[in-house]
Amino acid sequence: MKNLSGKAAIVGIGTTGFSRDSGMTELRMTCECIRAALDEAGLVPPDIDGIVKHTDDATDEHSVTSAMGMGNLTYFGESRWDGAPCSMLLRAAIGVAAGAANYVVVYRAVNSSSQRRMRTSSRNMAQMATGDLIQWTFHAPFGLLTESGRVAMIVRRYMHEFGIDRDDFGWIPVVCRENGSRNPKGMYFNSPLTYQDYLSSRSIVEPLRVLDCYEPADAAAALIVTTAERAGDLRQKPVYVLGAAQSTVPETEEKNSFYGQSIAGLPEVRSVGKRLFATAGLQPGDIRVAELDDAYSPLVPMQLEELCLCDPGGGVAFCKGGDRIRSSGSLPLNTSGGSLGEGHLYGMNHVIEAVRQVRGTAATQVNNTGPVLVATGAGGPASGLILGGAR
Amino acid sequence: MKNLSGKAAIVGIGTTGFSRDSGMTELRMTCECIRAALDEAGLVPPDIDGIVKHTDDATDEHSVTSAMGMGNLTYFGESRWDGAPCSMLLRAAIGVAAGAANYVVVYRAVNSSSQRRMRTSSRNMAQMATGDLIQWTFHAPFGLLTESGRVAMIVRRYMHEFGIDRDDFGWIPVVCRENGSRNPKGMYFNSPLTYQDYLSSRSIVEPLRVLDCYEPADAAAALIVTTAERAGDLRQKPVYVLGAAQSTVPETEEKNSFYGQSIAGLPEVRSVGKRLFATAGLQPGDIRVAELDDAYSPLVPMQLEELCLCDPGGGVAFCKGGDRIRSSGSLPLNTSGGSLGEGHLYGMNHVIEAVRQVRGTAATQVNNTGPVLVATGAGGPASGLILGGAR
Repeated sequence: MKNLSGKAAIVGIGTTGFSRDSGMTELRMTCECIRAALDEAGLVPPDIDGIVKHTDDATDEHSVTSAMGMGNLTYFGESRWDGAPCSMLLRAAIGVAAGAANYVVVYRAVNSSSQRRMRTSSRNMAQMATGDLIQWTFHAPFGLLTESGRVAMIVRRYMHEFGIDRDDFGWIPVVCRENGSRNPKGMYFNSPLTYQDYLSSRSIVEPLRVLDCYEPADAAAALIVTTAERAGDLRQKPVYVLGAAQSTVPETEEKNSFYGQSIAGLPEVRSVGKRLFATAGLQPGDIRVAELDDAYSPLVPMQLEELCLCDPGGGVAFCKGGDRIRSSGSLPLNTSGGSLGEGHLYGMNHVIEAVRQVRGTAATQVNNTGPVLVATGAGGPASGLILGGAR
Repeated sequence: MKNLSGKAAIVGIGTTGFSRDSGMTELRMTCECIRAALDEAGLVPPDIDGIVKHTDDATDEHSVTSAMGMGNLTYFGESRWDGAPCSMLLRAAIGVAAGAANYVVVYRAVNSSSQRRMRTSSRNMAQMATGDLIQWTFHAPFGLLTESGRVAMIVRRYMHEFGIDRDDFGWIPVVCRENGSRNPKGMYFNSPLTYQDYLSSRSIVEPLRVLDCYEPADAAAALIVTTAERAGDLRQKPVYVLGAAQSTVPETEEKNSFYGQSIAGLPEVRSVGKRLFATAGLQPGDIRVAELDDAYSPLVPMQLEELCLCDPGGGVAFCKGGDRIRSSGSLPLNTSGGSLGEGHLYGMNHVIEAVRQVRGTAATQVNNTGPVLVATGAGGPASGLILGGAR
């Protein structure tokens, strides 16, 4: 896979911003984001000949193609699972590198707040795949019905193994909201959170407090990927895909990997990390900024460990007090605010923010940015990217 | 894309055969096919590190991985649309060529007869994507509810433009059943069809007779794809992916492309054909056997034209009497029987049969087989393959 490094680049991004009610259809959000990404790049709709979408996005290739006046598509497909954003970029990068398409759009557009809330209750079980249903029969009768409940199981064991105090998870949402309060497109602009606010927020499923968990949002984002050669001719400074990886392991289920030897870790993220660094020819110490999956705050220290960005078992200590992970710290995290401080778009906003960090255009911009790491899908099928401004 | 030609190979295949009631879950069918494909190749489940599935398959990667004892997956994703089989192979080929995985499984397993019939009535409209629903509002109130009805619209125009007699479509099912009657794994083993049987079969939506349309079946198939280098070390003679392409055009909707300048053609198939031959560095005249989408028999002559395998407007004349398209003809078609003579698995059986033709192990084996062309998805998002025994 090393031969993929630097072969593809992100040349345009577009986002709607986050809200609790977009007032737009998902199709319109998709088109607005793609239009913005095209304008940035200096491209027009007929230039697009590839689309990588998410299975859960109701807006399909045909709606987008006809609504926007695109031409023939020669490369299109889908990724499933919440952890898909980075794998969608992997798929796009492989596609342009192989010549299956020249300019590939990757998008997500979901009115998760105003229209549909996914996987938050047993209501959706009727629509589940057979495989899911088989597994759920072991959990559902005992009341383990929600995603947060499943995450809580893993977190509880993680706390037990490493002697962690649940209060220490609070530094993640505090720092995310600190970043998010500077982000005018986010849900929490000008709304910082104090550590005391965190401590007094209610538990929803112990050890998780409500402020540990993402809030459903309406949002959309799109990116355009092309080859490194073509990227040089476009308007924006290219953001190269230095590394891309995805992983699922035998015991993986979505936010529900209870069958491994230990449930206190994120083996998919570990596997992604190894492949990412190998692909990019980089070391964990080379990473200057990381955008990690913060749908549930305890997943952040766990990812820091699995990606070798801190010592094993040391993730919570690394985050404590927030100084290391703030924008002024040694490893700033989730600089746009992430899921907890900007809004939840299943990690797609994390990829967008990584592009901004490499370009130097983020609301919370880190100085002298080297390679930026993105990880999506902690606790389930996972994927990751390393992006950089030089090949 | 020319650089992809010959880089990937199919090294194992497995099928369940076709029936009206498999008596098995789709998960079990999937696993049995994968097991057979692995055995053929001389591989074991932990060798597999990639899966490309179809969106509509309820059996997901996790169920397969845990049921079969596979290891970590580093490349997985989905293709939507009935015309996906060849695009799934494209995706697998690109993945192994890029090093995203070493051995990728591609499968479909659907109990379409005994469990669920897809897109055959308006019952499924509640589950449709927004984009589909927008389009359907223009057709459904006027009674255009079924896939066969939409295909009939296109066929009617094709007949008008080229002065075609509907009775002449009958040679497609006759030849398909002739081939299928020699195929012990098919639904129509030892059940040939006479041209007179065709003429006396009832119309279901004019100009389509019931024998022009596929019948839902229970079936599954799996293939294993790896790099050409690795393929050389395995048990089977490698079947190389010489060309692979997919296409959708601005006016495309599934079996429903009414918005183009002419509705009497298959523009997606035309686009696939151009890319296929360009990728493989071959000409239409090089093709010795073709496995074409025969879910509806009139689509076969239309594909022959769009793929430049016969003269424009000459598809029906090419098929008339059956002599050119029989196994002894100049261009044998659908040698396993295809959808009309073996059974309907959304084109996946067409890919399997192409592999057998290249290997020389088909029930209806064509002599001196050169490159074999497969086309899936006529009338909607389309994809195609050219397979061969030499790079």
